[in-house]
Amino acid sequence: MDDYEEFISRVKDIHKIGALQGHLGWDQETIMPAKGAQSRGEILSWLAKEQHSRTIDPSLGELIERLSKNTNLNQDQKSNLKEIKRRYEKARKLPSDFVAQFAKTKSEALLSWQQARAESDFSMFQDKLQELVDMTKKKIQYYGVETTPYDVLLDEFEVGMTVEDYDPLFDGLKKRLVPLLQKIINAKKTNPDPELPKEMVFSIEGQTEFCTKVSQAMGFDFEAGRMDASTHPFSAGLWPGDTRFTTRFDEKDPFSCLYAVMHETGHALYEQGLSLEHSFTPRGDAVSLGVHESQSRFWENQIGRTPSFWQVALPWFKEQFPDSPDWSPEDLNKIANSVTPGFIRVEADEVTYNLHVMLRYEIEKKIFNEGLKVEDLPKAWNSMFEEWFDIKVPNDTLGCLQDIHWSMAAFGYFPTYTLGNLYASQLLQAMSRELGDIDEIIQSGDWSSLLDWLRPKIHHQGSKWTPSELIEKATGMPPSPEPFLQYVEEKYSNLYNLG
Amino acid sequence: MDDYEEFISRVKDIHKIGALQGHLGWDQETIMPAKGAQSRGEILSWLAKEQHSRTIDPSLGELIERLSKNTNLNQDQKSNLKEIKRRYEKARKLPSDFVAQFAKTKSEALLSWQQARAESDFSMFQDKLQELVDMTKKKIQYYGVETTPYDVLLDEFEVGMTVEDYDPLFDGLKKRLVPLLQKIINAKKTNPDPELPKEMVFSIEGQTEFCTKVSQAMGFDFEAGRMDASTHPFSAGLWPGDTRFTTRFDEKDPFSCLYAVMHETGHALYEQGLSLEHSFTPRGDAVSLGVHESQSRFWENQIGRTPSFWQVALPWFKEQFPDSPDWSPEDLNKIANSVTPGFIRVEADEVTYNLHVMLRYEIEKKIFNEGLKVEDLPKAWNSMFEEWFDIKVPNDTLGCLQDIHWSMAAFGYFPTYTLGNLYASQLLQAMSRELGDIDEIIQSGDWSSLLDWLRPKIHHQGSKWTPSELIEKATGMPPSPEPFLQYVEEKYSNLYNLG
Repeated sequence: MDDYEEFISRVKDIHKIGALQGHLGWDQETIMPAKGAQSRGEILSWLAKEQHSRTIDPSLGELIERLSKNTNLNQDQKSNLKEIKRRYEKARKLPSDFVAQFAKTKSEALLSWQQARAESDFSMFQDKLQELVDMTKKKIQYYGVETTPYDVLLDEFEVGMTVEDYDPLFDGLKKRLVPLLQKIINAKKTNPDPELPKEMVFSIEGQTEFCTKVSQAMGFDFEAGRMDASTHPFSAGLWPGDTRFTTRFDEKDPFSCLYAVMHETGHALYEQGLSLEHSFTPRGDAVSLGVHESQSRFWENQIGRTPSFWQVALPWFKEQFPDSPDWSPEDLNKIANSVTPGFIRVEADEVTYNLHVMLRYEIEKKIFNEGLKVEDLPKAWNSMFEEWFDIKVPNDTLGCLQDIHWSMAAFGYFPTYTLGNLYASQLLQAMSRELGDIDEIIQSGDWSSLLDWLRPKIHHQGSKWTPSELIEKATGMPPSPEPFLQYVEEKYSNLYNLG
Repeated sequence: MDDYEEFISRVKDIHKIGALQGHLGWDQETIMPAKGAQSRGEILSWLAKEQHSRTIDPSLGELIERLSKNTNLNQDQKSNLKEIKRRYEKARKLPSDFVAQFAKTKSEALLSWQQARAESDFSMFQDKLQELVDMTKKKIQYYGVETTPYDVLLDEFEVGMTVEDYDPLFDGLKKRLVPLLQKIINAKKTNPDPELPKEMVFSIEGQTEFCTKVSQAMGFDFEAGRMDASTHPFSAGLWPGDTRFTTRFDEKDPFSCLYAVMHETGHALYEQGLSLEHSFTPRGDAVSLGVHESQSRFWENQIGRTPSFWQVALPWFKEQFPDSPDWSPEDLNKIANSVTPGFIRVEADEVTYNLHVMLRYEIEKKIFNEGLKVEDLPKAWNSMFEEWFDIKVPNDTLGCLQDIHWSMAAFGYFPTYTLGNLYASQLLQAMSRELGDIDEIIQSGDWSSLLDWLRPKIHHQGSKWTPSELIEKATGMPPSPEPFLQYVEEKYSNLYNLG
């Protein structure tokens, strides 16, 4: 075996362990019996240990070292080497004791967050969150700070992104989204949004049929994947030929299931479109959280929350729910796009969603770069929220305890959601330049040209390029918030007759 | 870490890999999307390689060596050491090339068997079967023959069992079962068995409800396990707190599902009852295939195929199927126990079942000890079958191609099914000595005393003793066919008024 073969064979083994973790995670969230939790945890932490020890194996380091001097590698091989080298060097910087202790603290913090959230009492979570913040600061020190401490965290979730990138981006968004929101709120005063009839019940079976049809129309291959139910919808690209996503069901609100399915199918289509040739290597993986989110948001919002979509989907909906009111596609589209400033990020519309993200970004930046104390977090959250959304946060569950991320020490994760929204609009814009009127395509009910556009430009590329390079190659311009702002301003001006 | 700690930690890792294989196998048979097969196979063969290399690791051998001289081990530790030593020594005897080649041939043979079975043409399978037999003979040589070559195979599936044990046992069974079968066939001529009404349909939902209730009544903990559907029912004790079994559904025949559920629940109760303290070690595993089968057959036959069971279960059945005929418990019990000599082992009643097993045992013995040629296998099968069952095998699918075992080179496996039947009767006899009238217990609908009897005597013991020792400790006598023969003669004399 030559060096690269030996290297890639080890990389594939590490990826296989990751695939097993993904599989067990999927099982845990969907069908595992309750009493399996403890031993499941044992198996998962054993797998994590196995993966870690292989990732930091010095003989892997020697291979990386030798390959770094090899000038004969092609672009695919280079991208694998670069990514594994990055992971190796980062992982080597953390002492094993620290890694184990951090993992333990995270699992304790998760429990403490769950209890605090149930009681809506931040003080119950504060000590554990403090520990997580302290350990994260220590982790930042281990990794080494080149610019600002928070940049080290941002880079963990979207390689290469820094405060210097995000600050102007969020600032630009805020400057145009807050006024847009104000206009919408005013318009709604005279012309309230239509709503789902409160008394109607939409059967789980009907929702399943309807959503399966939508997912199939998007191009999801059900012979190479599954749809199941879980508390929090998610998508898992386990391994080639086996991509699974989940949804949730609310008998009073079929939109909750529909848009979860469109969102998760978007993620799942990315996974189904990755290059088989590069399975179990970074080159065959999705490139980043931001790009992944662009795929889910594209289908959920740019396609699914349009009158054109409802022209196609309304007959499918009526087939399952013949007793529903005599809605037009425009009615359903209005319900699906209702802008209502609320407390919860995951329920937010496209106008307010990025403000929710920005709030978290600002808080994290304050904690890691500006010395905000953990005990002052709720106050900071609540005052910023009131300023931007013009409503008062009534309790911590609807405020700073709502997301799971901080209990897992996933500081720096949130901004990738916004990147996804921006990339999605940029992709739509490029797509319409090349394919013509996207609305016409959606109305035709044959969406294969959309997927066929994404396949070679995004999906097949895997991690060959950085996220920014990928977006630039696909759309002809570097990542920018402008397409999103144009999209959202035009869309909501039409919806609310803002003139 | 002392030697034993180091040893047992490695053993647990090996077991965890086994648990992962079990989990992926369960998933594959129940819910995996079709196109996931190839990469699933890759992951499974990678896990097998990982497990094998750890099993034959020379440094594990050194630990075993040192521990074998340690006189301070307790019985639990001794049983772990003994079993791992046995596996280590066997695995070390097989060259890696041979192991890989054998695995490859097995997977090819499985495909070839599936095709041959579909076409009912043994000649399509003959070449691959010949390869498997040749490689198995080679394996026997690697292991080394102490008594007869077939003994090496028998020992693989029930440690310590040999032709010398099985020959008299099967002979004794045949001597009394064949005449019993003749009497029953004669009795049926004047008094045919009742049958399920051909036109009735039993809904899958109703069968699921009914069978879940039965499984719960047996003591299966659904918070620590699941019931699903698969083509071939099976049970998988994945890890503590997570035991899963499957059943199959036939809308025309609710008995097919019911007895699959009782059988698999029997296996699953054993798994749920294993010692938590010894998880992921041989001591915490089921001791043997034979003892496992005794648990499934006990609940399926000794409990489930009795009029007392139907006294309790008939109201549950009626609840789901109110339109079924006005059956008495005795009617349903008669249908459930109908003796009809048929071609298929897995559909056989308690009288003929062991004859089916014996036929396979005789064929295997002829192949490995007496030089029967593979090409002559169908002829040998068909002539023996006609002699014992008095019906002519019409084709290979109903004859020597019916079971999957030989396509997996699982020669020596079948006899463990008969051991299970014998142990089950012996357990019933001992149980009734200690608990009193078992029929009364069954009729009460509270079967916890039966499970409570099995828990400490069988389940909690894991692999602390050999199968024979375990049965002797639990029942007060060494394994014997006599309790089974008494049971079956009495049961069927009553059922068919043989006087």
